[in-house]
Amino acid sequence: MNPNSFTKPLDIRQVNIRDAFWGAYQKRVIEQVIPYQWDALNDRIPDAEKSYCMQNFRIASGKEQGEFKGFVFQDSDFAKWIEAVAYALTIKPDPELEKIADEAIDLVVSAQQPDGYLDTYYIINGLDKRFTNLKDNHELYVFGHMLEGAIAYFESTGKDKLLQAMIRFTACVSANFGPEEGKLKGYPGHEVAEMALMRLYEVTKNEEHLKLAKYFVDQRGQFPLYFEEETKKHGNKFWWADSPFKFQYYQAGKPVREQMEAQGHAVRAVYLYSGMADVARVTGDEGLYQATKRLWDSIVSRRMYITGGIGSTHYGESFTFDYDLPNDTVYAETCASIGLVFFARRMLEIAPDTKVADVMEKALYNGIISGMGMDGSSFFYVNPLEVVPQACREDHLKTHVRPQRQKWFGCACCPPNLARLVTSLGTYAYTASKDTLYLHLYVGSDVNTNLNGEKFKISVASKFPWYGDAEINVETAGQAKIALRVPGWCRTYKIKINGQDIQPEVKDGYALISREWTAGDKVGVVFNMPVTLMAANPAVREDAGKLAVTRGPVVYCLEEKDNGTDLHMLRLNPEAVFNELFRPDLLEGVMTLETQGEKLEKDCPNDVLYHPVSEEHFKKKKLHFIPYYAWANRGEGEMCVWVRKS
Amino acid sequence: MNPNSFTKPLDIRQVNIRDAFWGAYQKRVIEQVIPYQWDALNDRIPDAEKSYCMQNFRIASGKEQGEFKGFVFQDSDFAKWIEAVAYALTIKPDPELEKIADEAIDLVVSAQQPDGYLDTYYIINGLDKRFTNLKDNHELYVFGHMLEGAIAYFESTGKDKLLQAMIRFTACVSANFGPEEGKLKGYPGHEVAEMALMRLYEVTKNEEHLKLAKYFVDQRGQFPLYFEEETKKHGNKFWWADSPFKFQYYQAGKPVREQMEAQGHAVRAVYLYSGMADVARVTGDEGLYQATKRLWDSIVSRRMYITGGIGSTHYGESFTFDYDLPNDTVYAETCASIGLVFFARRMLEIAPDTKVADVMEKALYNGIISGMGMDGSSFFYVNPLEVVPQACREDHLKTHVRPQRQKWFGCACCPPNLARLVTSLGTYAYTASKDTLYLHLYVGSDVNTNLNGEKFKISVASKFPWYGDAEINVETAGQAKIALRVPGWCRTYKIKINGQDIQPEVKDGYALISREWTAGDKVGVVFNMPVTLMAANPAVREDAGKLAVTRGPVVYCLEEKDNGTDLHMLRLNPEAVFNELFRPDLLEGVMTLETQGEKLEKDCPNDVLYHPVSEEHFKKKKLHFIPYYAWANRGEGEMCVWVRKS
Repeated sequence: MNPNSFTKPLDIRQVNIRDAFWGAYQKRVIEQVIPYQWDALNDRIPDAEKSYCMQNFRIASGKEQGEFKGFVFQDSDFAKWIEAVAYALTIKPDPELEKIADEAIDLVVSAQQPDGYLDTYYIINGLDKRFTNLKDNHELYVFGHMLEGAIAYFESTGKDKLLQAMIRFTACVSANFGPEEGKLKGYPGHEVAEMALMRLYEVTKNEEHLKLAKYFVDQRGQFPLYFEEETKKHGNKFWWADSPFKFQYYQAGKPVREQMEAQGHAVRAVYLYSGMADVARVTGDEGLYQATKRLWDSIVSRRMYITGGIGSTHYGESFTFDYDLPNDTVYAETCASIGLVFFARRMLEIAPDTKVADVMEKALYNGIISGMGMDGSSFFYVNPLEVVPQACREDHLKTHVRPQRQKWFGCACCPPNLARLVTSLGTYAYTASKDTLYLHLYVGSDVNTNLNGEKFKISVASKFPWYGDAEINVETAGQAKIALRVPGWCRTYKIKINGQDIQPEVKDGYALISREWTAGDKVGVVFNMPVTLMAANPAVREDAGKLAVTRGPVVYCLEEKDNGTDLHMLRLNPEAVFNELFRPDLLEGVMTLETQGEKLEKDCPNDVLYHPVSEEHFKKKKLHFIPYYAWANRGEGEMCVWVRKS
Repeated sequence: MNPNSFTKPLDIRQVNIRDAFWGAYQKRVIEQVIPYQWDALNDRIPDAEKSYCMQNFRIASGKEQGEFKGFVFQDSDFAKWIEAVAYALTIKPDPELEKIADEAIDLVVSAQQPDGYLDTYYIINGLDKRFTNLKDNHELYVFGHMLEGAIAYFESTGKDKLLQAMIRFTACVSANFGPEEGKLKGYPGHEVAEMALMRLYEVTKNEEHLKLAKYFVDQRGQFPLYFEEETKKHGNKFWWADSPFKFQYYQAGKPVREQMEAQGHAVRAVYLYSGMADVARVTGDEGLYQATKRLWDSIVSRRMYITGGIGSTHYGESFTFDYDLPNDTVYAETCASIGLVFFARRMLEIAPDTKVADVMEKALYNGIISGMGMDGSSFFYVNPLEVVPQACREDHLKTHVRPQRQKWFGCACCPPNLARLVTSLGTYAYTASKDTLYLHLYVGSDVNTNLNGEKFKISVASKFPWYGDAEINVETAGQAKIALRVPGWCRTYKIKINGQDIQPEVKDGYALISREWTAGDKVGVVFNMPVTLMAANPAVREDAGKLAVTRGPVVYCLEEKDNGTDLHMLRLNPEAVFNELFRPDLLEGVMTLETQGEKLEKDCPNDVLYHPVSEEHFKKKKLHFIPYYAWANRGEGEMCVWVRKS
């Protein structure tokens, strides 16, 4: 770890996204998801499971009588909503929305207890029980998300009411957890507080906030295991006693520095690793950084789908083992891929590396946005790479896989998580060191930041993800360095300054351009983006003898709608030549790919289940590919990413 | 259904098995399984889950004080044991064993209630609760198994104490169930009583016994659904409310004649279908026969593994949907394949058809005996076609699949079921009509029966399953017809009488030889048994692009022990030529197959999970196949039946 390599994300207000592709997502989030979610939090959606979220705050603050209802972590739905609102307000000011948010914050804060405690489940059910089931009752998860929401709202609006409340809650948590005698030796059952506290520390520079984050990271998995002790002491249930991962479900079975593989619940895992990276960077803890690097590598080299999906099984929504990546019983929760982006950005803050940014881009364009329908109001939790609708209904191993996006979820983690990510995309597209602006993603945007203490302003125009062209217009004069990510999927590219080819130095995968800029300078990049057929590592049993079609950052799939049923009978030649056709009319505008493939002709009578092998006959068949993220927007049908190789 | 085609199984005492292959299994069952099981029933096995079976009988009969323990169907373990004992005594008289059995029967019968009722769970827990949860409490399942045991013991030893007790129990059940007013309109939750009652009827010719069997079959799934009503009335839990099959888990969601597909728990299903076939035959019910034919076809044409395994999923140990035959998450319970043999024999009783007998043979030589280890004391419930041991430990979807046979089971259904099947094999190998003896299986044996009212005696010598040679020595003179099954796996064969080639008429797949026999006549058959590579119907997604190696009735597999790890990286050419080598030293003597195959050389650095497709490089590698049934006898390792095709 070299502090000279450290970079920081830009302030969200320094990046203004103007991008055809992502702008549409931001619009959908702002115009549909955020208002819909507010209605959901207030139980105003007919025919939907009730949330009870805001009602719980009213009851906790004494404004209403009643019982706590909904999931134990229901408060976090408000937290994620307010975070998305905060980002939305930086994209598009909206006094009406801000007023609603302010009033909601008033309500939330009015439930806060004198010692700063703020979790409606325990306020309503009895504060004597608080901190007795950290393992499963998501108390510090709610705390963490509320912190993130509070910081975002402060950073976006300058209003600090929720932030101040959360600083008080942090003091309350600090008073209850830590190495000092009499304090609990616990840590979050579902991580997120670690990275939230580090974000708070960036704002407050209060060492107590850093200390608490570091404590949660360092204490995790120390013996005796806190969750084991807590379970015994309070007679809690231990759901995972018979599981292969046991306390590693919570990444709490051994100290974090001794964790060699990504294990357990995938969302929790990447949230923890994100916090570990933050703590490692700020405290200069090389051992902790090496642990995060190892865990990163465990994921991206052995436990990640080609879509950036993570979590191979529904059971525990968890990682399984190396190269175990079933396409049809997969979990690949939208939130887990979002968490992978959080983790990636933090690794980039420690050391820019295009391989890390490649994963971030892969998750964003594939396994994350597949979570939201084109209608902006239907969502996937699970993002499978192969679907046969009948199996989703009749095979219990696949009933968690939905062939169609659902309207909302009782456990509504993914939609608001997607909302807060999409609206804060600017903080992932760029990071900056003292003298260098890193372009990790090519997203059309105006950037207004400082390098070397001087204003540095650029505007980026991008044709991603359909074409590898982008243009950077430098709008300020002066010495500055920009680092352009050369995508891993790109084999040949051109970079020009003011129309002149240049051959910049490439370091850690970034093309570095350092110069004395003149306002009006233009940097043009063209990353060639041919269709590329991908194979999996041969150790991936489920992808043996199969190919995946990719083009630039986008992974493609076959849908029944375009290709008929029995997608497993189709084959694709590794040398296949593709027609690329951008279809503005289709799926909000997508690049489609078409090629000559083949389909097996049934080589036995229908009623014979097994027969002596005979030559298989294939007939030519056009294969029509669409981007994976856009699947399941045109009715129910089969889908697959991996296609048999002929 | 044509009564002229009806055949009957031979009396078990009419067939004396002398077969190298099956004799070894019978020996293992007689010398190891039966004594072991008796110890198990009496809780004398250290470190094993206790059975409590005989203890429950002691408590129920007032000889001891205590509570009922073990599974609700624990009595059936005795029932299956006594049935296997009965058959064992016909194979090898054993006065000591018979004395133990007689005493056990004394104890069991001493628990019988004045009205004939005999189920220790309810005798101990309160007879007022009897018949209140037919759906799940296995009361009529215990009844059915006890009936089968009683009949077998009577037929084998001539002793009718248990039989008489069970006739009284049958009267008790008849008094409680039936169309008459005041009687319950129920039927077994787990089927078996249907075929057991039909077997009782064959012995007693008591119409009440036929009537009860027919009632259980006809009433099943009639509306209002008895199990739904019972659940409501007694506040029972309905485990499968959220399942795709609901009451079809019990084959009780619609009348049996309207059941178009094999559904629900696979063992229950084939037990029911067996009873349906019996009732159809005896009552001449063509509609019911058509239903059994449809269900047979549903299984063997669309829902059966190549090993004769059935039940595609652990969830509900059940069928899923057509062509859904995953090899690694499979259930394929040993008992289900045994039940398939029961079903097959009953279909053969209605109309001999070698296609049906082929399935019986397939199940016997593969998915059934795979259930027992070479040590005779370890057993599989689940018979997978693909195993990676790590997945069995770390992927929850596969933890029901064991890479090694287990010593015994708390729910010990499979080992005793295997024991009773193997010891009664003679009743499956042959059936006879008035004038024809059908040889469905080629098993070395002496057969001593009657045709056309005359003694007909043959001895069969067989080299099955390793060679397709068998010789039938006719030991009595007179007119008689034998029907020799021409196996479906055989394309060319020769039949000789006394050394002279003959070309007999073939009907329904059986070569018919009708003549005036002279004692000493010899019929020689040679069924050519080349290695045959099989493909699955293209609709079977999981076997796409793969081959299975078979030879005669035996399905082969690759084991890690012989072929190293990463079996999925191996490929087999459809034109491959095999060396056949019988290895008497290996796995109690097996025909091994060896061929030149190939193995993928890793075509990417180990740490790359996805990479642009490049030409795959395969290096030559000898592939060593062993019979599937013999897998997992040489330590833990990978195994697969289906191999990628090159």
